[in-house]
Amino acid sequence: MFKSILREVVENADGAIASILMGFDGITVESFANEGSGVDMETVGSEYSQVLQQVKQAAQMLEIGNANEVAVQAEHMTTLIRLINDEYFVAVAMKPNGNFGKVRYLLRTQAPKLLENLT
Amino acid sequence: MFKSILREVVENADGAIASILMGFDGITVESFANEGSGVDMETVGSEYSQVLQQVKQAAQMLEIGNANEVAVQAEHMTTLIRLINDEYFVAVAMKPNGNFGKVRYLLRTQAPKLLENLT
Repeated sequence: MFKSILREVVENADGAIASILMGFDGITVESFANEGSGVDMETVGSEYSQVLQQVKQAAQMLEIGNANEVAVQAEHMTTLIRLINDEYFVAVAMKPNGNFGKVRYLLRTQAPKLLENLT
Repeated sequence: MFKSILREVVENADGAIASILMGFDGITVESFANEGSGVDMETVGSEYSQVLQQVKQAAQMLEIGNANEVAVQAEHMTTLIRLINDEYFVAVAMKPNGNFGKVRYLLRTQAPKLLENLT
């Protein structure tokens, strides 16, 4: 179930490379990568899990409600992350010119399904 | 100069509330807020400066080049951050339904002007 959603997001957005469902503790639930992607999505997820901890703290300090989404655009890779609940997030790595809006839409619509199956 | 750019970004994007030009050490160069915005942009910038330090580390670890842009969407506020160089960033706070794409465009086009005047 998780795998098919993770695959669907990557395969339906131009420029998407890999995706992962992970706990904030850096433990992977499931991941998917395009063949020959060359992206170690576990390492990506693990690095960003630390960023997300900081984002959650910032949101709490600023009293702006829960953080829902974090996007990081770097020179060679864009990563879009959707926080699912207090324990899990889903992240998609894409090329810098990838279809960011489509990935965002797909993550937003698929997040409730992931949540349903995680709880 | 800085003030007029920070003002321009906020005034030209629907839903934008406040903006700040800040060092990664949390020291403000300049800021602008809509009247009655109720947002303490210095605190926002300071909280996110810590997130950005973590993002920079992650980008280095993952060898994906420099981080250019970070966006955080929380329930009551979206924040878009453009990294200008190794020392400074510019951040814009907006309502959750604000014109994210327009802020992104304005920050991208104004960043070189800010950089020019910072160096």
